[in-house]
Amino acid sequence: MATPAAEGTRARAPGRPRDASIDGRVTAATRALLAEQGYDATTVQAIAARAGVHASAIYRRWPSRIELIEAAVSPAADLAQFHPTGDLRRDLRRFMRAYVAMFAEPAAQAAVRPLLVHYQTAGAERDASGFLNISTRPQFAEILGAAAPGSVDPAIDPDDVFDMLLGSLLARSLVPTVASRRRPLERLVDLVIRAVEPRVQQA
Amino acid sequence: MATPAAEGTRARAPGRPRDASIDGRVTAATRALLAEQGYDATTVQAIAARAGVHASAIYRRWPSRIELIEAAVSPAADLAQFHPTGDLRRDLRRFMRAYVAMFAEPAAQAAVRPLLVHYQTAGAERDASGFLNISTRPQFAEILGAAAPGSVDPAIDPDDVFDMLLGSLLARSLVPTVASRRRPLERLVDLVIRAVEPRVQQA
Repeated sequence: MATPAAEGTRARAPGRPRDASIDGRVTAATRALLAEQGYDATTVQAIAARAGVHASAIYRRWPSRIELIEAAVSPAADLAQFHPTGDLRRDLRRFMRAYVAMFAEPAAQAAVRPLLVHYQTAGAERDASGFLNISTRPQFAEILGAAAPGSVDPAIDPDDVFDMLLGSLLARSLVPTVASRRRPLERLVDLVIRAVEPRVQQA
Repeated sequence: MATPAAEGTRARAPGRPRDASIDGRVTAATRALLAEQGYDATTVQAIAARAGVHASAIYRRWPSRIELIEAAVSPAADLAQFHPTGDLRRDLRRFMRAYVAMFAEPAAQAAVRPLLVHYQTAGAERDASGFLNISTRPQFAEILGAAAPGSVDPAIDPDDVFDMLLGSLLARSLVPTVASRRRPLERLVDLVIRAVEPRVQQA
């Protein structure tokens, strides 16, 4: 039951307001360390020193270095301010480019494979937090939901398409025989558009 | 210029005929070692001892342990005898199941991530031999080529679809948030069929 003092005021988390600038400083320091010194050297202590914060400030925000590294090399932050325009091709392109740009960065290049190895060791089931997708999956569904009428079949499950697309983007970065072909991203945009559109079109 | 002795005989590589059974024994020994002792312990010496062959017999067949491990955990051998029926859904299912089965094996589970790390270290451009695809890419094109008329748009580039599919299959094994969803493979078959079919169908 609300106390009189709380009535009429907006709900707020207890304690001091969290300093949002720390989040950005910490993830930037994480990316810099990954790029310069690699995955193993990117410890919470090293990140804290680089960012000029206490390790405790990091642990208040992320349970471990794994989640912090995931956050630092995820395109989620880049996509957080993105709202679909309704132009399916344009929106898909924007979404996919965020992943391609992220995977191309030295920080992600240093982190992605060790994270995959970590997931294997930790057990995939127990460690489904997901540097690669969990925070952009809803945004992908929004893109399909906002598309112009007739461009997305209602029978399509956006999560299935997202899974397919995520793997395809990952392969462009991780798998030599795919990466070396250097196919334009637009070819993948085309295939996704084809996969989601209604099967029988009115001429 | 052919010598008289060679005339009228079939072309044959010089030296003794290669013992095909050695290939199978060596790849089986490689899979067993990967599953039991892991990637690092699966050396050419250990494989030779396990298979009961000389290391030189291995090096005559594969340039290094990397290519041997790639061959041992590739579905290419399983798909070598596969010929498309012309039923696109059935053929795609068969092809994709070979990958899913391979990725699920302990040997592949032990090898795939270290191979990805190796590719990064070695440089993706120089190391595009490809455990994941190079030898099944033509078979995938055959499947699309054999499909019943009207089921595959001639404008589709099979290599683009293969790249997309390979990544999607890989993600089902490697990426926790995809793997943990345990979606039926048929959903991915559906998306591939939709992506390749002609865009405007006659009703």
